[in-house]
Parts: sequence; structure tokens; C-alpha cells
Amino acid sequence: VTKTVRSSGHGTTKPAVARGSEPQQDRSVRTKAQVLAAAAELFAERGFRGTNIQDVADRVSMTKGAVYFHFPNKDSLAVGVVEAHYARWPEILEHVRDKDMSPLDAVEKMFDRAALAFRDDPLIQGGARLQIERDYIDAALPEPYIGWMARVAAMLWEARESGELREDVDPDAAARYLVAAFFGVQHVSEILHHRADLLERWAEMRGLTFAALRK
Amino acid sequence: VTKTVRSSGHGTTKPAVARGSEPQQDRSVRTKAQVLAAAAELFAERGFRGTNIQDVADRVSMTKGAVYFHFPNKDSLAVGVVEAHYARWPEILEHVRDKDMSPLDAVEKMFDRAALAFRDDPLIQGGARLQIERDYIDAALPEPYIGWMARVAAMLWEARESGELREDVDPDAAARYLVAAFFGVQHVSEILHHRADLLERWAEMRGLTFAALRK
Repeated sequence: VTKTVRSSGHGTTKPAVARGSEPQQDRSVRTKAQVLAAAAELFAERGFRGTNIQDVADRVSMTKGAVYFHFPNKDSLAVGVVEAHYARWPEILEHVRDKDMSPLDAVEKMFDRAALAFRDDPLIQGGARLQIERDYIDAALPEPYIGWMARVAAMLWEARESGELREDVDPDAAARYLVAAFFGVQHVSEILHHRADLLERWAEMRGLTFAALRK
Repeated sequence: VTKTVRSSGHGTTKPAVARGSEPQQDRSVRTKAQVLAAAAELFAERGFRGTNIQDVADRVSMTKGAVYFHFPNKDSLAVGVVEAHYARWPEILEHVRDKDMSPLDAVEKMFDRAALAFRDDPLIQGGARLQIERDYIDAALPEPYIGWMARVAAMLWEARESGELREDVDPDAAARYLVAAFFGVQHVSEILHHRADLLERWAEMRGLTFAALRK
């Protein structure tokens, strides 16, 4: 215990306290993260139209003014949630690979995690719903799908090099297809069952697609 | 020519003219269909929010009042387009089968036609976009996807009975998956490329899924 306290008092924290500004910045960063988390939940549940700044403030027990300090309007709050959604993917999708895991197994595990995140993570759910509702948000959102397609494509090229992929499968085409199909599966699951059946639907997709990819 | 004219003067048309009410009803039905077609185009291009009744009236060279005669507000016009979208599917999906076509080939051809319709048919495009934007429409819309899933499932059960389907494939699961995956493929194609690449993306999906279904 002593060691931990001592090491946390070194270097980073202590000079910050001395300068006097960082703790307030830390608090500000934490507050902003809380606002984003609450907004993501509300956007996921009620959509962009059904959510207002007062609801967000109420959920984090702040004044509307405190929310406006971080996000001048609902559109910028929506952009913040979508950006946080994209920032979350690397956490979810990276380090999926044990050292003895093949590239194709890693792609499956990546989608396993994505299915869990779509079912359970409000930041992922809120960001996904806002992406669908992008025409109603007066702000530019990042282009969806392509980052994830590139990540899956890179791993499928690895699978091809290691001889794991069937030879008639184009890794880029398969990556495009898997991401689009998974998007469809989670969307239909949301519309028909609020994603309660998503893990079963993803398991069906996995059974029907991955067998066809493997040599 | 004489024969055609004579037969068109028989039976259906003549008594209608005699009763005096049908031609006006016919005109009304035609007008309503024109309004729906124009509204579908506009909803497909600009979404629900970006479309107003005046735009629709302008596109069919009518007054706003003439449009309101058929649809009292934009929400009911949206419902009309979504209903017309669903009414179109049987035309697109039925009679796909030549008499010597197998059930699984017929499912493929059904999706071929759906891909063409999503690329080219404003009624299909407009209805699909409104379904996505359903939270913004103050009216109940029909539940999406399930009708199509049931239709595909029925044909996959036929394919199983005729021994065409791989034995470990559950026809209901495969139908759910194909419809959801196809929805995802056309949606991503719309968002990234306004569906200009849809036929290629569908061909990729077909290559990656149907081989896995066949025995």
C-alpha cells in the first residue's frame, strides 16, 4: 500500500497540485466524461429528437449551465458522443489476440466483443443510433464503417498469408461484407428486440459466415 | 388495332362510364399514386426532415391543397410511402421462379431483384429511408423486415426438403440472417456511396453466403 501511495505521489500528481490548475482540469475532464456517458444513454434510449440538455443535466445532477459549459448545444453533444463511440472501438477491438490465436480466430473474437458492446455499452449504442440519425444533427459526424472495415481487412490479409483463408475469398471484399452484415444484424435486432437477442443473432451470423471463409 | 380498341370498350370500361363515378375515382387514384411517387423520390433524396408538402406539390405540378386532399399532413404522406413500399415487394419478389428453378436459386434471384430495386426504385428507397427515420415520424409504421424474413424462410424450408440446403443450416436462422445482412449491405452502400456500388456489394454477399448454404 505504502509503495502505491508513494509512487502515485511522484512525478505526475505532485507538480500538478503545486501548479494548482490540474486538479480543476481533472475535474473538468471527469465532468465532461460523465455528461457524455449520460448523453449516450439518453440518445441510445430516446434518440436525438427525444433527448434534451435538461434531461442530460438531470441525469448527472448538474445545472443546464454546467452542461452548456462543455457542450454549447445538443448538436455538439451528439458529436461528442459519436467521437467517444469511435474512441471506444480500439479498447474493445485491440488486445483481443492471445499470442497463439490465429488471425481468423481473432476476427471472430473481435466481432464477439462488438456484439457484447452493442448489447451492453451505452456509448456504443448511443453513437450507433446517432450515426443512423445523422441527417437530424446539424454538425458533421465522422464517416462510419470504413475504419472498422480497414481493421478487419488487415487481419483477413494476415489470415490469407498464413493460409487460413479460403483461396477464392478476397480479404477486402470479405471485410466490407462482414462489417455491413454485422451492422445489419445489430440494427434489425435493435428494431425488433431492443438488441435482447443480439448474441444469438451474431452466433447465427458467425456460423453462416466464418465456415465459408476458412480453408 | 381494331380488335384491341373493341375489347377495351367492353365490359369493364363501359358500365363505369355509364355510372359516371368511376372515371373521377380513377383520376383520384392516379393522382394519389403520382403524389406518392413524387413524395417517395423526395423522401429518398432528402429524408423526412428535408422534404415538405410544397416540394411534393411542385414536383407533380399541383397545388398544396390538392396534395392535402389525399394526405392531411407530412406524417400521413410518409405512412403512405412506407405502405406503398411494402405493397411493392410482392411485385418484385413473386414470379421470380421459372418452372425449372430450384428453391435456393429462387432465393438468390429474389435478392438480385431486391438489390436492383434498392438501387433504382424510388418507392423502395423512400420507404427504406423513412423506416430508418421512423422516430421522427408521428405515426405508426408497419413493422419492418419480418414479412421478408418469413418469405425467405418458406423458400429455404423448401430447399431443405428438396435436399438443396446443407443439413446443418437452420432455414429460419438463415432467413433471419440473409435479410438482416442484406439490409446492412444496402444501408452501408447508401451511406458511403449513395448505392452506386450496391450491385457489386450484393454480388460479394452472394458469393460469401450462398456457397455456405448449398449442400
